[in-house]
Amino acid sequence: MARIITLTTDFGLTDEYVGVMKGVILARAPEAAVIDLSHAIERQNIRQAAWLIKSAYRFFPEGTIHVVVVDPGVGSKRRLILLLADGQLFLAPDNGVLGLVLEPDCFQAAYELQCEHYYLTPVSSTFHGRDILAPVAAQLAAGLEPAAAGPVIARQALEMLAKGAVKIDRARGTITGEIIGRDHFGNLRTNIEADSLKKLYGKDASTARVSVKGKTIIGVQEAYDAEAPGEILAIIGSRGFLEVAVNRGDAARILDAVTGDAVRVDRSKAEASV
Amino acid sequence: MARIITLTTDFGLTDEYVGVMKGVILARAPEAAVIDLSHAIERQNIRQAAWLIKSAYRFFPEGTIHVVVVDPGVGSKRRLILLLADGQLFLAPDNGVLGLVLEPDCFQAAYELQCEHYYLTPVSSTFHGRDILAPVAAQLAAGLEPAAAGPVIARQALEMLAKGAVKIDRARGTITGEIIGRDHFGNLRTNIEADSLKKLYGKDASTARVSVKGKTIIGVQEAYDAEAPGEILAIIGSRGFLEVAVNRGDAARILDAVTGDAVRVDRSKAEASV
Amino acid sequence: MARIITLTTDFGLTDEYVGVMKGVILARAPEAAVIDLSHAIERQNIRQAAWLIKSAYRFFPEGTIHVVVVDPGVGSKRRLILLLADGQLFLAPDNGVLGLVLEPDCFQAAYELQCEHYYLTPVSSTFHGRDILAPVAAQLAAGLEPAAAGPVIARQALEMLAKGAVKIDRARGTITGEIIGRDHFGNLRTNIEADSLKKLYGKDASTARVSVKGKTIIGVQEAYDAEAPGEILAIIGSRGFLEVAVNRGDAARILDAVTGDAVRVDRSKAEASV
Repeated sequence: MARIITLTTDFGLTDEYVGVMKGVILARAPEAAVIDLSHAIERQNIRQAAWLIKSAYRFFPEGTIHVVVVDPGVGSKRRLILLLADGQLFLAPDNGVLGLVLEPDCFQAAYELQCEHYYLTPVSSTFHGRDILAPVAAQLAAGLEPAAAGPVIARQALEMLAKGAVKIDRARGTITGEIIGRDHFGNLRTNIEADSLKKLYGKDASTARVSVKGKTIIGVQEAYDAEAPGEILAIIGSRGFLEVAVNRGDAARILDAVTGDAVRVDRSKAEASV
Repeated sequence: MARIITLTTDFGLTDEYVGVMKGVILARAPEAAVIDLSHAIERQNIRQAAWLIKSAYRFFPEGTIHVVVVDPGVGSKRRLILLLADGQLFLAPDNGVLGLVLEPDCFQAAYELQCEHYYLTPVSSTFHGRDILAPVAAQLAAGLEPAAAGPVIARQALEMLAKGAVKIDRARGTITGEIIGRDHFGNLRTNIEADSLKKLYGKDASTARVSVKGKTIIGVQEAYDAEAPGEILAIIGSRGFLEVAVNRGDAARILDAVTGDAVRVDRSKAEASV
Repeated sequence: MARIITLTTDFGLTDEYVGVMKGVILARAPEAAVIDLSHAIERQNIRQAAWLIKSAYRFFPEGTIHVVVVDPGVGSKRRLILLLADGQLFLAPDNGVLGLVLEPDCFQAAYELQCEHYYLTPVSSTFHGRDILAPVAAQLAAGLEPAAAGPVIARQALEMLAKGAVKIDRARGTITGEIIGRDHFGNLRTNIEADSLKKLYGKDASTARVSVKGKTIIGVQEAYDAEAPGEILAIIGSRGFLEVAVNRGDAARILDAVTGDAVRVDRSKAEASV
């Protein structure tokens, strides 16, 4: 069966960069299915790529190989790694871009890439995605044992990434988090997990009150259409985190909200007074 | 032989949304070939997606599965449907996005999706493309009988879509239609079919006069280069409809034309006075 | 084994144009792997596409079929060609878009497309990529002999393309070239080959001095990180040509540089005075 290789980069789609990575892969693993996750990561935005790959990988079958190239340090001393986690494989620079898939409950093993005989020759100074990661991904798809990629690295030696501050106060029933980005529709992503909301407010989240950018939203909805067009609402987004949206509108623009803005959840007054 | 699944959405290519739909599909139908038609439909522009899928599907082989996700009502009561038409399969919300492939001469059958055992669990409130349409598309690619998707819906019960007003006056030799959009090159698409022109003006369309935005164009050309660079011209576009273009230029910008602007075709004066 | 077909166009990804080309291909060559190189070539920018395909093709395996559609003359008398070069196949209009892969040392053969029985019927006036190039690419992928595409054309009869002026003065140790474009990161591409630098300055290029837009850069670096963030530097880009970059910044914007701007390389003063 064909192995799947996904690509996540900040390369854009104007240049040939993504296409030649696929050429290098298919020349070595003709049966691989190469899937684009995103090539529109903001230039050198490691955090954006880290959240994306964390959110995406679990929809792929076991054994999928994820190549993540957001690599401002290309050509310098930063190392490239192969990470095994949750039954899947990840190839990337060790700069935090895999920092959100390193949690102890899914980590299996990590290796520093030192299998030069698989690299393109010569290796360029500026494009290790093409010259190193693509051919190694292809070899893995073609059956290379992960342990053959290079020496083992301990989990603790890998570059981690903070999820951003989330404070949960069970006694008071409050959660404080932050905006971590926006999607194509302008929906504002937070770092507050659906599970945290469920633990505090139960299955019926209609008692939760979400505050962001001076606006207050009552309840967490099941559908954008729960509010009239143009109205602000809170909803659990497809990544499993709290999002702030505007029905048929662009919440990021309407609220003038950006990454890092505070988000607070507590019990609505009506409920609090019961 | 591998089945083809096409994707048409308003998701953009920045987020992981398109990529994870492919992951869900390939996990269930590893041999499927997944082809992007467009992910740059304007947010929630059902009409734009409807024209695109109508224009594109006939270039795919029989049995191709087209998934169209422009779905402002996601999570609310709108139903999801499987449509069989012209030997092909279409999966989409029943909101008019398939309204232009419902014509009686190509309609075969329609079903309301009620095959929950194929859906991802849990089904999110916000991403039925990933949680319902992708896995059902994969099952169809893997051999599921369409009738197993859910209960039959009559054609008349489905959401239709108007093509926009076109008036043909055979006696006077005039056609009145409208601009329905622009393409990447700035070419202005109309809802006036090539066939209508042929019936009124015969094979030689050099007698037709096209009026739009106060400009008058004599004749329908065979090539953009039939006029000098920068000149406005009328031509039959690749969708088989009349288009207004500028040789090596951007007609939408130069004419300041938008969707809904009137387009009128009649006989040029020289011909009319004969 | 599946044959690879690559696509390079100025079609953008909003319309269905790229998708329907894939439909036409897969309907005729279901096992082909279709890879996008770029669909964001500037409208009708033949030179940009020519540099891209020249830079990309060598990363694909022998026998790959490259379809390049930047075709302002579509529907007029310009001919379509099949070029064999360096073990690979190229389908494009004969308008210079293949002008940089025509060098005598890689040229093998060229044919004018005249195999109408493979074209879609009717052939439209405006989309030969879909109606002619896609089905012919599919036939070639399915085993059609190149010579069956049409009559032979001599290399000298094909449209060439100048690389832009590069003057090398070995006696004085200077190279004068120009900016030929920018990439997604804002890195400025020049037409000065790495090999030319190596011949003049040896393996250690730290003695080279690069002048562009009134700025002077000492040395050619091995990594963007060789300079502090925000600093201008010279580097050999992934295409094997000299590039001017800014570490973690956008050189094209910072230097306000555009295609055609002069670039001069000579020996740095320190070295010259030795």
